[in-house]
Order: sequence, then C-alpha cells, then structure tokens
Amino acid sequence: MSSIKTEIRSGAYYDSVILMQLQRSLADLPTVIDAGVVMGTEANKDLLEQSGLLVDEIKGANADDLVIVVKAENEKKAQKALEQVDDLVAARRSRDAVDQEFLPKSQESAAKTLPDAKWTLISVPGRYAAGVSREALRLGTHVFLYSDNVSLEEEIALKKKGAEKGLLVMGPDCGTAIINGIGLGFANQVRKGSIGMVAASGTGLQQVSVRIHQLGRGLTHALGTGGRDLTSQVGGLTARMSLELLDRDPETKVIVLVSKPPDPEAADGMINFARGLSKPVVINFIGYASTLQQIDNLYFTTTFDDTAAAAVKLADDSKLTQEEEDLHLDQFNSGQKYLRGLFSGGTLAYEALLILDYYLPTVYSNVPINKEYRLKNSLVSQGHTIVDLGEDEFTVGRLHPMMDHELRIRRLEAESEDPETALILLDIVLGYGSHPDPAAELVPAIKTARSKAKKAGRYLEVVTVISGTDADPQDMKSQEEQFLGAGARVFHSNDAAARFVGRLVRTLEGKEAQENSESFKPVDLESLTGEFSAINVGLESFTESLLAQNVEAVQVDWKPAAGGDPDLMALLEKMKG
Amino acid sequence: MSSIKTEIRSGAYYDSVILMQLQRSLADLPTVIDAGVVMGTEANKDLLEQSGLLVDEIKGANADDLVIVVKAENEKKAQKALEQVDDLVAARRSRDAVDQEFLPKSQESAAKTLPDAKWTLISVPGRYAAGVSREALRLGTHVFLYSDNVSLEEEIALKKKGAEKGLLVMGPDCGTAIINGIGLGFANQVRKGSIGMVAASGTGLQQVSVRIHQLGRGLTHALGTGGRDLTSQVGGLTARMSLELLDRDPETKVIVLVSKPPDPEAADGMINFARGLSKPVVINFIGYASTLQQIDNLYFTTTFDDTAAAAVKLADDSKLTQEEEDLHLDQFNSGQKYLRGLFSGGTLAYEALLILDYYLPTVYSNVPINKEYRLKNSLVSQGHTIVDLGEDEFTVGRLHPMMDHELRIRRLEAESEDPETALILLDIVLGYGSHPDPAAELVPAIKTARSKAKKAGRYLEVVTVISGTDADPQDMKSQEEQFLGAGARVFHSNDAAARFVGRLVRTLEGKEAQENSESFKPVDLESLTGEFSAINVGLESFTESLLAQNVEAVQVDWKPAAGGDPDLMALLEKMKG
Repeated sequence: MSSIKTEIRSGAYYDSVILMQLQRSLADLPTVIDAGVVMGTEANKDLLEQSGLLVDEIKGANADDLVIVVKAENEKKAQKALEQVDDLVAARRSRDAVDQEFLPKSQESAAKTLPDAKWTLISVPGRYAAGVSREALRLGTHVFLYSDNVSLEEEIALKKKGAEKGLLVMGPDCGTAIINGIGLGFANQVRKGSIGMVAASGTGLQQVSVRIHQLGRGLTHALGTGGRDLTSQVGGLTARMSLELLDRDPETKVIVLVSKPPDPEAADGMINFARGLSKPVVINFIGYASTLQQIDNLYFTTTFDDTAAAAVKLADDSKLTQEEEDLHLDQFNSGQKYLRGLFSGGTLAYEALLILDYYLPTVYSNVPINKEYRLKNSLVSQGHTIVDLGEDEFTVGRLHPMMDHELRIRRLEAESEDPETALILLDIVLGYGSHPDPAAELVPAIKTARSKAKKAGRYLEVVTVISGTDADPQDMKSQEEQFLGAGARVFHSNDAAARFVGRLVRTLEGKEAQENSESFKPVDLESLTGEFSAINVGLESFTESLLAQNVEAVQVDWKPAAGGDPDLMALLEKMKG
Repeated sequence: MSSIKTEIRSGAYYDSVILMQLQRSLADLPTVIDAGVVMGTEANKDLLEQSGLLVDEIKGANADDLVIVVKAENEKKAQKALEQVDDLVAARRSRDAVDQEFLPKSQESAAKTLPDAKWTLISVPGRYAAGVSREALRLGTHVFLYSDNVSLEEEIALKKKGAEKGLLVMGPDCGTAIINGIGLGFANQVRKGSIGMVAASGTGLQQVSVRIHQLGRGLTHALGTGGRDLTSQVGGLTARMSLELLDRDPETKVIVLVSKPPDPEAADGMINFARGLSKPVVINFIGYASTLQQIDNLYFTTTFDDTAAAAVKLADDSKLTQEEEDLHLDQFNSGQKYLRGLFSGGTLAYEALLILDYYLPTVYSNVPINKEYRLKNSLVSQGHTIVDLGEDEFTVGRLHPMMDHELRIRRLEAESEDPETALILLDIVLGYGSHPDPAAELVPAIKTARSKAKKAGRYLEVVTVISGTDADPQDMKSQEEQFLGAGARVFHSNDAAARFVGRLVRTLEGKEAQENSESFKPVDLESLTGEFSAINVGLESFTESLLAQNVEAVQVDWKPAAGGDPDLMALLEKMKG
C-alpha cells in the first residue's frame, strides 16, 4: 500500500518557480509516486483531489499556506522525501539564481544600482503586488504588473497615481509588452516596424503581433494594459495613456487596440477616445459587433487574423492621413446648424441615418433607426432630419419621388426658408424608370433656394448623391454638370456623402470628434524610445529573459516585508511616505 | 383675393402618372396660382394644407376619392380651370399612351399576345395589386410587384402560391430588378458580369449595382424581394428562392444579399440558408452588427460601398470555392463527439469560443461568452469544452501554464481517457517568458494519449496552435516538427484552428451547415437566362422603359374590374377559379 505524507508551512513565501521546481524534484525522487506543492487555495485542493493527493490533514489549509504532499510506496519513504524539501529548495535556488553579482534587497537599492531604469516588472503574489507597485511608482518607474489576484480597488488607485505622474501601470494580470523590440513577460521576438499596439489581452497581443510578423511586417511598441483596464470602473485609463503615447510616437503609423469585449459604456468611451487620435486605429474588441466596419480613422475587425491583416494593409498604404477638408464653415450664418435630408430612395435614407448615427446624437426621421426619433409629422422637420419621401404614406395615388419631384421641390423650398437649415442632402437616382431629366426640375429649385438664402444672409449647402452609371439613359455626366452649376456638391456614393455631411454638421455644431480632455499627465516618449533597462521583482525568469535580450536588468532579492504580515507591511509603507 | 375651387370624384381610377400630369397641366394654366390633384388620404390632405390648398369641402374626402383643387385669382377663373379637367386628361392620355397598336384589355389576352412572357410587372394601386398578382401567377408568370400599400397577409398568400408553382413574387413595394441585363421598374444600366444580387431594398440594390459598375465590374441578375420579405412573418421566402436560383446560375460567381435590418430570427434563418449555398455570399443587413466579418462562404459588410467592394474582390479572386477538406471522419469511434480545448492563453480561448459559436450550439467554458454555459467545475469538462488554464483560479502560487505544463498534461490525460472526446485543442505560445521547450513536455504526453486512445479503439485528433515567430528563442520550426511527429495537426493561426475544429466537430455531429430543406419549387433557370419579355399592368412608363431596352413588352389597358367594387371583384375572381 502506498502512503501519503503532508506538510503545511503557514505564511511561507516561495516564488512559484521554486514551487514548481520543488514539485518536480520531489516527483522525480525514485521512491516517490506523485507529489504536490501548492498554495492551499480551494482550486488547488480540488486539483490535489483529482490527482488522489488530497488527505484530511490538508483540507483545512488556507490560501496563505504552502501545502506539500508526497505519495510514496510506504510511510517511511514518504517521510524521507518530505525531509528533503529544504535541501531541494536550497539546491534549486543556488543552481537557478540569476547570474548577478549583487542582488539588491529592495527596490530602492535596485533603483540606485540601475538609475536609468524606467520600468519595473512585478510578479510577486497578488497580495503583495499593490505595495510593490506603489514603491515602483514612488521611484518614478512605469509598472509592468504581471501579478494577478489584485483587487479592482487597488488597480484603480495605482492607475490614478500613475496618471498623475505620467507613469504607465500595465496590469495587474498584464502578461505581455514589447518596448522598442524588448519583450517584457511573455512576448515574441517580433520584427521592428510601424505598427503600435495597445492590448487588454495578453495572448491577443501575442497572437496579433505574431501574425503581423508572419505577414512580413513589424511593431514599434506593444503595450499591455491588464484585462480589467477597459471595464467601466477602470475606464481604460492605461489604454488611453498608451494610445495617446503611441499617437505621439513618430515611428508608429498605425495603432492596433485589442481587448476582450469591454462594458458597452467603456467601449463607447474608448472608441470616442481613439477617434480623437491622428492615426488609423484598428480595433478588435473580440465579440463586439459594430454596425459600421470603418468610421473616420477607426477600423473594426473581429478576429486576430483580420486585425493583423488590416493593420498591415493600413501600414502599407502611403496616403494614410485624412486630407484636411475645407468645410467653409465661415460661410454659414451663426444660426444655421441643421441638416435636412430629402430622400427619394428609402434604403439610401436608411444608410445615411446609420452612418450619421456615428456623427450626430439625434437625427429625426419618418424611417428612424431608433423609434424615439420618429418625426412627429413627416411633413415638418425637427432639428437634424432625414425624410424618406418614397414611404408608403406619400405614395397613395401619387408617383414615386424618383419620377415626380413635386413633393421634394416644395419641401426643398420650405427647408431653405428655415433660418436654422445649414445643409440640404438630396439623392438623385438615375436609371430606367426614374425621371428622364432630374436636373431639369431640381436644379432650378436648388438655384432659387440658394439665392433666396443668400439674400437672407445665409449660406445654403446643397449636397447631392447621384446614384447612376455612365450608361444610364439620363446622361450622368450632363446631370452632374448641371448640379455642380447650381453650386451643389456632387457625390456618387451615398456612403461618402453621408460621411461628409456628418463631418460638416458635427463641426458646425462645434462638436469635434476629439474631446480627449486629458485626465492624465502624458507619458514621456523617451520611456519607449530611449535605452531600455528594468528592475524585476518576482519571477527570476523575467530577468533572465531581459538579459537574454541584451538589455540591462536587475533582479530584486525580494521577500515580503515584515514576514508578510499585512498590518506591519502597511505601517512600514506609511512610514516611507 | 384669390379663390379656391375643388372637385371630388369618388371611386374614380386614374393611374398616378395621369394624376401628376393633370396637376402639372392645371398649375401651368396662366390663370392658375397653384393646383393639387391627389387621392384623399390623410397624408395628402396634410400636404394640401401645407400648400394652403386644404379647404373645408375636401376635409371629409377619403382615400378612395380623387381630390382636385385649383387656386386662381378669382372664383370664376378657378371654376373655369376645373371645367378643363376632363379635356386635359384626355389630351394627356392620347399624347403619352404607349405606342402599341393593340392594347389588350386583360392580362389573359396580354398573355396570348406575348405567350413567351415569363414576367408580369404590376404597379396598379395597392388595393387592386393582390388580385392582379394572383392572375399573373395563374397565367404562370413571375410577378414584379411594384405596388405598395398591399397587406402583409396578401403578401404571404401570394408568396406561398408562387413557391408552390416555382414562381417568384418580387414585392410588394419592389422597385428594382435586373434580369439578364434588362432593368425592371427603377434600374440602372449596369455592365454584365459575374455578381448576382438579391435585395429587400430597392435603392440599396441600385446603389450597390451602380457602385459595382463604377468599380468596372458587372452583374448577372439582381432580384428584388420587397422590403418586408425578410420579416419573420414572410420568412424571406422570395429571398430564399432567389438565392437558391442564383446559386444554380453558372454565370453567377458571387452573390450579394442586401436588406434593411431583418428581424433577428429572420436574419438567423437567412444567414443559415445562405451558408448552405455553394457560392460566396456578401451580406449587408444595413445596421446589423455581426460578431465575425466572415464565416465559411459568408462575408458581412456594413455599407453599400463596402458591399460592392467586397463583391468585386471576391469576383476577382480565382480560388473562390473552398477546398473540400478530408476530415477523416471514419477514423473516429461512433461514441466520440466532443471537443476539449485546453488553453494557456486566455484571449486565445475567448477567440476560439467566439468562432465556435458559429459552428456549435453549446460550448462550455470557465470563461464562457454566454454565462449559461459556465462549467460547473472548471476541472471537469462537459460536452464541448474550452478551458482557460491561465485563469486566476489556477494561478495562485502556481506558474502560468505557458511556463508550467503540469496542469495541462494532467488534464490532457484525463480528457483522452473520456470515450466521448474526439478532439483536443492546445495552444502553444512561444516567445520570451514562455517555457523554453514546450514540445519536450507536451509531445510525449500527446503521444501517450493518442496511443492509449488507439488501444481503446478510438482515434484522438490533437490540434495545436503554435503562436510564435521564426525569431523566437524556442526554434519554432523544430517545435512544429515535434508536434507533427506526434501526429498532431499544427496551425499558426488561432482563427484558422478554431474554424477547422468547428467544421470537424460540427460534421462529426452530423449537423451540416446546409439544412435547406426546400419549402418551395425551384425556379426554372431559363426564366433568367432565356429571351426576356414581359406583361405590364399599371404605370405605362415601365413598358416604355422595357421597349427602350429593346425587349418585347405588352401594356395591359387595365381598369379595376367591376368599377373597383371590392365584393364584386372578389366574386369575379372566384368565378375565374
């Protein structure tokens, strides 16, 4: 019969590499059948049970207790194995320790050893992580906080402190970052390039960066934020600081933003923030469904492959920056603010509403997307209005407005007399079945409306979408020239026209896309682009990884202060100030 | 003082071209200030009011009444203008009538005049339209039903009748179609090409077809369905028949499906149907947000421009048809059916869940998309399971599974012993920070699991995603070879791996994508590709358009039967059988 022996060490601190190595060493002893070395959490006890290692003695252990279990052929052998624990730990320690002549005992002395270090990597157990992070911020370094099991309250407090000081708090539970080619935590060796990343998702960041590399392109920097950054409570503070930073980085041409699906309000906030940036941003909020795949500088994607492909395509595109449009806003009278769209095509009206929803808070219509914004009376505009004059209500015993312009001309006249009207949007649908010469009827009406407005001291912008082909019976080219001759703008794409109108009216309202009132001190760009060096507290393998990448790093020989006693630790921290 | 005179003609039938022309003729008389000629609907009375033409006498008119209003300088002149109404109508009629020697008085005689006509275009007022459509179906023609104001019940009945007979009922309120280059109703002159369209949206169809033309490509056919086809009540019957038809058309390479946002259940039904087709389908349900932009043969787009661009791109792509994969299903034991995904990367697990949601009804997880499908115990799989072993619950005092494979190896062993497990999915994340040689630990475990399964008469498929670059410290090539050597499949994209796994497990469950049990008689392909000719009932301009396109068309000199009396009309129709 085999025998199981256990030992519980209360409040003992070993880092998890040591625990793994100890477990392996015990299991490798010739007399041992199986072994477990874990902290006494419920999940870990369940795991021990699955392996048949959960005995009564350890059922009462708690999360702070180190539990060592050995299963051997007999009691004596099990006991003997247990007695080797300290020797095994000592042996592993001396063999694997980072090859560093002097291991500073505190972050402060590490900072003195490496005064240029701008980063601290932290991977101590969750309950100690906030304290270590506070110390890192106090010492003026950015924090790469790998530890998980850190409370939301502590995360918020740390990020606020960082925002005040212009320091990034990446994490908790941040597994990955690449700073100027140097990987922190889990990170792939990815080619240098022109794509920057911000991710609230460790393996999402890794997979996208790897796919970008596989596509032959590369990264400037990739900044992790921790998985909870884009919740409404945290509000994406680290993501915002990171996006703003990459937007200033001259090497970054395109930014990728990846996250598990954020809370809807946090998503909206992030989207608005990203829309205020000057660079294209590819957004993959995994599982987030967007009603437009592109709006202004934002590109929505749904999988990591699409995300990498879209970023690469944008990075390869030479004309990335949107041309500054001259919207001639000074021509408008100060009371002019509203859009009036008079459509003959129902689905064109609907598409325009869909697109304008990204520009204007409220557009009234007789075919509204949101029923709240239904026009009280289809014949009378309210605020911004898109009316579909081809709706059934208008076509009883009456020709469709694509054949008969009577209704539109009367409405055009009424709208142009409204001193609040700034812009009239008209669709001109050519082709068989439609009016044989729309310009003949609409152009005089436009001319009259515009000159009347002018006399009244207003500027009336008329935007037309001509939907037709060069083979249509109406002679599209001549139609276009006539509308241009009346001072109207002409688009051939409803999509493009709606976006133009959206930008114009939004700007007229003084509501710029960018409302990024910065609630943080901007991060010094030099943190990314300067010589990299870091302090590491926790997993020694992270220091080893940094050294393998030929950068300076110092491992802190960290132990919980005051033997891990929470009250004493808090007191010590307070004394430091 | 000006004077307004009115006349009401009850139950009089004039088509709406006549009404428009009469209104114009009256308004053009030198003595007339303004005129209105409309059916007496509430909307039309509101319009008259806006033009200052609504007088008390006509406030009581109803929708069947023709209302004529004239505003002139004085009473006498107004009266005089009114007296000219019949002459004006007669003059217009003789001038504009279709140039056709013999105008058949009934659809039946029109069908005798043009026996090869496969299409009837109908644009009579809504209250007569269902009867005319039934007659068209009885005569064996497809119906292009332009009329609006037709009830939902009538639409459903007509479409069911059409489905029985293999005849399309396009509409009611269908404005647009292109059959083999011939435009019906409102349609642009669009180049011939390899893109087919189905649209529950008239100007949507026009705008997309125009954009395709502008991009230098063209259409095979474009089939309108009417705006209500994709509601849950109608269930997209016309859209299904049209999609199935275009799927059989050898000239159509890519299909575009456009609609205003359908009811969610109707959308799901259409998506499933389209997924069962053999050709790529570009779907734009305007305002519909999809959590994946592409799945199997489906491509989701959000604006008409994107839709045209995607269709053109697919039409230009030479390798469109998905290669038939050999999934080696015969290797599996009949009891094997479940996927077990053991992830170390949290967001990789999440992306896999998102993609698998399109293949499998239920996947359990400790990080589920839908909380209903949370694993009761993260340590025990249920049905299809994706488990993220990097979740906080597993990492207290334990290394992350990207560094320590202990947990995954134990779980792999347990899963492989489950006789219902068919497939194990593993992510292998390379790079700094990760285990220096994952293959060294996982490959022996895979080999053992597969050989144990084999001994038990089962075939265990192991799919791995290696997320890494050729520059990573682990030597990706050698890692890949070791996994391949153990008989595992290797992907470098999590996206591609999840889709492969989805297809395999779905097929194993016997649930094919296509469940298109056809509830209709398929439409004869010859209807589209054969010589085009049509019967037109209603707006004469539609016949003129057809003649202008050099095809045979016959205008029916239609008047409502029995003077438009609903009961008598029903009786007459019944007698015809």
